[in-house]
Amino acid sequence: MHKVAIIGVGCSKFGEMWDSGFRDIVISAGVEALEDAGLEGKEIEAMFVGNMSGGRYLAQEHIAALIADYAGLAEFNIPSTRVEAADASGGLALRQAYMAVASGVHDIVIAAGAEKVTDVGNPMDIMISSIDKEWEGFVGATLPALYAIIAKLHMEKYGTKEEDLALVSVKNHKNGALNPKAQFRKEITIETALNSTYVAEPLKLFDCAPISDGAAVVVLASEEVARKYTDTPVYIEACSQASDYLAIQNRKDILTMNSVVVAAKQAYKQAKIETKDIDVAEVHDSFTIAEILAYEDLGFVKKGEGAKLIREGVTELHGDLPVNTSGGLKACGHAIGATGVRQAVEIVLQLRGDAGKRQVNAEKGLALNIGGTGATAIVTIFSR
Amino acid sequence: MHKVAIIGVGCSKFGEMWDSGFRDIVISAGVEALEDAGLEGKEIEAMFVGNMSGGRYLAQEHIAALIADYAGLAEFNIPSTRVEAADASGGLALRQAYMAVASGVHDIVIAAGAEKVTDVGNPMDIMISSIDKEWEGFVGATLPALYAIIAKLHMEKYGTKEEDLALVSVKNHKNGALNPKAQFRKEITIETALNSTYVAEPLKLFDCAPISDGAAVVVLASEEVARKYTDTPVYIEACSQASDYLAIQNRKDILTMNSVVVAAKQAYKQAKIETKDIDVAEVHDSFTIAEILAYEDLGFVKKGEGAKLIREGVTELHGDLPVNTSGGLKACGHAIGATGVRQAVEIVLQLRGDAGKRQVNAEKGLALNIGGTGATAIVTIFSR
Repeated sequence: MHKVAIIGVGCSKFGEMWDSGFRDIVISAGVEALEDAGLEGKEIEAMFVGNMSGGRYLAQEHIAALIADYAGLAEFNIPSTRVEAADASGGLALRQAYMAVASGVHDIVIAAGAEKVTDVGNPMDIMISSIDKEWEGFVGATLPALYAIIAKLHMEKYGTKEEDLALVSVKNHKNGALNPKAQFRKEITIETALNSTYVAEPLKLFDCAPISDGAAVVVLASEEVARKYTDTPVYIEACSQASDYLAIQNRKDILTMNSVVVAAKQAYKQAKIETKDIDVAEVHDSFTIAEILAYEDLGFVKKGEGAKLIREGVTELHGDLPVNTSGGLKACGHAIGATGVRQAVEIVLQLRGDAGKRQVNAEKGLALNIGGTGATAIVTIFSR
Repeated sequence: MHKVAIIGVGCSKFGEMWDSGFRDIVISAGVEALEDAGLEGKEIEAMFVGNMSGGRYLAQEHIAALIADYAGLAEFNIPSTRVEAADASGGLALRQAYMAVASGVHDIVIAAGAEKVTDVGNPMDIMISSIDKEWEGFVGATLPALYAIIAKLHMEKYGTKEEDLALVSVKNHKNGALNPKAQFRKEITIETALNSTYVAEPLKLFDCAPISDGAAVVVLASEEVARKYTDTPVYIEACSQASDYLAIQNRKDILTMNSVVVAAKQAYKQAKIETKDIDVAEVHDSFTIAEILAYEDLGFVKKGEGAKLIREGVTELHGDLPVNTSGGLKACGHAIGATGVRQAVEIVLQLRGDAGKRQVNAEKGLALNIGGTGATAIVTIFSR
């Protein structure tokens, strides 16, 4: 396997982008990534695109060919492949691109993630299609409802409190305020979070990430090629993917996402590191309880002890292990298929020292992107 | 790169399957493939799934995790990845699976394609989402309309006749009658084809493939592992993918699918063969004119001379180069995301000598799967 580097990153603003179409958003991120890498479109050998809802909301499938075309690459006839696993679509695109370079098939590859949802349909619809439609959706379960069941049980079994969940939201908003691309750039107090309306008890408005428009793009290259383009490559040391039962009712323990546990173990092993070597992480906080579960399933703490990390400030921007320095899905925004790639952009900026006011000191980073309630998980480990 | 073999194939019946859901269809094909390979589910290391319309028609995205789950593989947490490029989705799944084995990342991988469309929505809707929605669909263009433009110009420029198109349909129905999995198992006369209603002049009802329910699955393994399971492996000598402008208006010549030309050249080169070495082919006859274009773009004949092959009977079942022995999309049926994998199933059966009444004598086969009007193409070359 060849060593793989990220040599360029780009990200659109995340949020409700009423004045931009899907094509505008993805091209803006792509141009930024190519400029960052200092390369021309014609040097790209292949493209992988994560997108969840093109068919449903834009009545447009065949999204990868569309993006290659609008990026001006159609004349080069490069293979362009869409991958989809709900809100893990971006992570899948990153992984396929990583494998295409690691295997030696290609030298320079694009991984993109993009979504346009806010003014083209009912955002709740789209998220229900990420869970088991026949066994969960059909009986009225929604994403917030399923995560509420998980949160409730976590509270009962491990003593996690609504205040702990609120602290996750407060932290991520604090970080998001420092991120120019974030959807919400406003700090909130714990009272604001705790006093917000219940969406699905015990989850309140401020426990739920928004559903956003946005796109993110990274340029991957083999180590040898990367050196021609940049003095600050960020390496992908591992990128692992695993699956779990689609419906949470079939899992042995709904408080453990086995897909995350398995993908993380594989990634640590491949990267030859231990959990404690991670300096910064972006995790999938579609709901605040998901960030707590991530702490546990990634092995940062034992199962049941996730809340300790947020209570003790360990995962704050200047804590021992900063998590979601971008603001996470909660404050940076959650542009479904873009999120997995957007997480990679943040880790690259942190490891290069380009993260501006939210810069932390880090040599190794991790990103966790999950689909729905965790039927798909991708864990990626980066180093500078 | 490791040599890759197909060690098992499975295919559901294609057609209007009113009594089977998406999950039933895909599992029936999967069980057949595993039995054919003689392996158990737990030996599978990864899965790639081609599906176009899950989100739109089943309100179910995250299809690959769902299939891994329903196939009983969730407990093994294998990576399961959905790919989509309209009706080239199956070909993409095959290619990703091929790359996963060729690169040495995995030893045994599943490529599946599945679609459920006939009783869950308006089939025309789905196909429009494969073309450029903003520049083609928005102004009223449909798949038949775009292929009609192509056919009209081919007639004007190269003298192709409606009779030539009808002969493609007659041939494919004749082959389909011999295929127990085919949707239409009835021979037709040229008069039936020529007297059928115009859908978009010059294309008539019998020039258009149906839109079907169906699933197909192939099991891929590295050469070394394949030998443990079978004495009749079929090797994938090459699997190439290319893209083109999404809207046909942007192409230099709408009578040439550059994606096909480029993918075919790459595939011939990688397989170290010439066009004349191909003994049997499955090509993407979503419309009869598409089969004529395929003859030309794959290099079987020069541009403009495609109709000669059908007039002279070269591509008949017992001609020099049998094409669409399965009945093709026209008669076997076109289960969108399944088609690219279904084509591979047919070529494997032919090369193994398991094609029953439609058996031809062949050592090397080719499959061409395209998306929409050719913005994506995958060319795969097989040998026994």
